[in-house]
Amino acid sequence: MPAGRRGNDEARRWVITVGEIGEFALIERVTGRLRGGPAVLLGPGDDAAVVRADDGRVVASTDLLVEGVHFRRDWSSAADIGAKAAAQNLIDVAAMGAVPTALLVGLACPPDLPVAWAEEFTAAFDAECALVGAVLAGGDVSRAPSLTVAVTALGDLQGRPPVTRSGAEPGDVVALTGRLGWSAAGLAVLSRGFRSPAQVVAAHRRPAPPYADGPVAARCGARAMCDVSDGLVQDLGHIARASAVAIGIDTARLQVPDRLQDVGRALNVDPLRWLLTGGEDHALVATFPSASDVPAGWAVIGRVREGEGVQVDGAPYPHQGWDSFGGGRS
Amino acid sequence: MPAGRRGNDEARRWVITVGEIGEFALIERVTGRLRGGPAVLLGPGDDAAVVRADDGRVVASTDLLVEGVHFRRDWSSAADIGAKAAAQNLIDVAAMGAVPTALLVGLACPPDLPVAWAEEFTAAFDAECALVGAVLAGGDVSRAPSLTVAVTALGDLQGRPPVTRSGAEPGDVVALTGRLGWSAAGLAVLSRGFRSPAQVVAAHRRPAPPYADGPVAARCGARAMCDVSDGLVQDLGHIARASAVAIGIDTARLQVPDRLQDVGRALNVDPLRWLLTGGEDHALVATFPSASDVPAGWAVIGRVREGEGVQVDGAPYPHQGWDSFGGGRS
Repeated sequence: MPAGRRGNDEARRWVITVGEIGEFALIERVTGRLRGGPAVLLGPGDDAAVVRADDGRVVASTDLLVEGVHFRRDWSSAADIGAKAAAQNLIDVAAMGAVPTALLVGLACPPDLPVAWAEEFTAAFDAECALVGAVLAGGDVSRAPSLTVAVTALGDLQGRPPVTRSGAEPGDVVALTGRLGWSAAGLAVLSRGFRSPAQVVAAHRRPAPPYADGPVAARCGARAMCDVSDGLVQDLGHIARASAVAIGIDTARLQVPDRLQDVGRALNVDPLRWLLTGGEDHALVATFPSASDVPAGWAVIGRVREGEGVQVDGAPYPHQGWDSFGGGRS
Repeated sequence: MPAGRRGNDEARRWVITVGEIGEFALIERVTGRLRGGPAVLLGPGDDAAVVRADDGRVVASTDLLVEGVHFRRDWSSAADIGAKAAAQNLIDVAAMGAVPTALLVGLACPPDLPVAWAEEFTAAFDAECALVGAVLAGGDVSRAPSLTVAVTALGDLQGRPPVTRSGAEPGDVVALTGRLGWSAAGLAVLSRGFRSPAQVVAAHRRPAPPYADGPVAARCGARAMCDVSDGLVQDLGHIARASAVAIGIDTARLQVPDRLQDVGRALNVDPLRWLLTGGEDHALVATFPSASDVPAGWAVIGRVREGEGVQVDGAPYPHQGWDSFGGGRS
C-alpha cells in the first residue's frame, strides 16, 4: 500500500463515527482483534459468554466510568481510558485475593464517537487485561447522549476464602502496596491547566495497580483488604466500619515521594493530602495478624485497635475522599 | 406514625435527590432491603461479590439500558424500568440454556434523580430476579449527565453444554416460545401519544420472558438458541450467520393475536411486521433436530436449510430490526 494511502486510512478511522457504521459493524470492529484465553470457553458474539470457574465460585465486580466525572477525553486518550477502565476493575477482583479471569464491557456512547476511539479503547482495555492473564469475554454497545463505560470483572479465588472488608481485628497491622497520591497530583496538575510533570500526569491517565499483590496477601493470611479508590482514609474507613474496629495510620510511615513534594511546592498543596485522600492509583491496603505476616513489597503504615473510625497520627482526619455525587473532595 | 406523617414521608422520597444524599447513602438505601440467596456467598458492600458456580463454569452477559434509547421515564415507571432491566439480562442467560444465579447493576444517573426512583427501580429489579431465584449481588452508582443502567447477569449451566447461536444444522426445525410483537405494538401506541390498549402498553413497559423455557430447551436437545431482542428476522439472521445455514419462517405458523390485529387496524399497520421485527418481548427462538424434540409450550415456525440468510415465506424480508445507532427500524 502506498504510504499516502495508509495515512489516509488512519485519518479516516478518526472521521468515521460509530453512528455511521452502526451497532453490529462496531461490535465486529472492536471484537475482531481480541485475544482468547483458556479461562474463556465462549467469547463475544452470543447471548452470553461462558467462563471457567474451577474454584466452584466466581468473584464478580462492576464499575462505571462516566465522561466528565471519571475521565475527560481532552485529558486522556482512548487508550488511557481503556487501560484505566480495565485496571480499576481488575484491582477490585485482586482486592478480594482473587485472580481476574474475564471481563465484560458496556460502551454507551454518542453516535459521533470516532470508530477509532472505540477501537483504541478496546485494544488498550484488552492489553491491560493481558497483564494478569484475563480476557475480554463480552459486552454491549449502545447509542447514548453521553459517554459511559460499564465494566464487569470476574475472578478466581483459587480455593481460598475471599478477603473481605470485615475481617480486621484489633492488634492487626495495616499494610499498603502500590502507589498513593500520584493520580491525585496528576489531576491537580491537569486541573490547573498544566501538562507536566509528565510522570504525575501519566500516573493520573493510567494507574499501575499492584494486581499480583492481592492474591499474595490472601496467601499470607490477610484478614481484611480493599483497593484505595476513594482515598486511603475513606477506604480504611470502610474496613473500620465493616470490621467494627478503629484504624490508626502513622503518617511518618507514608513516604512522600520527592516528585510529589516538588509538585506540592509548585501548586502550594501539602502532598500528604494527596496520599491520604487521593483515589485512582488503586493501591491495595490490607490488615495482617502481625508484621511478620506482611509480604515483601508491602509497607506497614498503621495498626488496628478497638473502637471506631480512622485516626491519622492519633486524630480524625478532616478531609473527605471521593463521592461521585459530592462533586469531589472537601 | 400518624397517617399524615406517612404521606409526607412518601412525598419527600420523591423530592430528595440522589445528589443530596450522596453515593454512600444511596448505596445503603438501595441495598438495604435486598434479599440474599444461596447462590450469593458474599453480597453488596465489598470490592466484589462472590457467587457460587457449582458447575465449574459461569455464564455471563452484560447489557446497557439508556434513557431516551431504551426507555423513557415519562412512559415507564421506575419499577417498570427496573423489572425490564433485570428481565432482558435474565433471558440472555436463559437463552444459553442456563439458570440465572446473580446480577450486578450499575446506575449512572443525574444528581437530580429522586432517591425514590432509585429505590423503586432496585426493588422491582430484585423482584424480577426473584422470579427465577436469582439475586442482586452487587453494583455501582455514579453521577452522570444522563441516566444509564448497566446490568450483568451470571448463570449456571448445570452441567450442560451452552446452547449457542452456531449449532443449527440443515433439517432442524425452528421453534418459538414467548410473546412476539406485543412490545412493538405497545411502543407504536405510546409513540402516537396514546396510553391504551393497556395490555400492549403494559407489555412494552414490562416484558414477561419465558425464562424457564431456556434450560428446558437445552435439556431437550436444542442445537441453537437466542432470545428475540432485535426482532425475529434479525435474531434468526444471527443464528443463520453463526451456523452457516439458511432459515425459513412460515408466517402461517405465527399466530397474530386478536389484540394485535385490533391495534394494527387502529394504527393502520400490518401487525405481522411487529412479530417479525419487534424486539423487547424477549421470546426465545431455538432449533431442534426434529419436531418430536420440541418441548411443550414451543411452537414450530420454520425450518433450517442449507444456504444463507433468513427467508420469510420463501423470500427475503425487506424490513430491519433494531440497531441502537440506527435510530430504529426501516
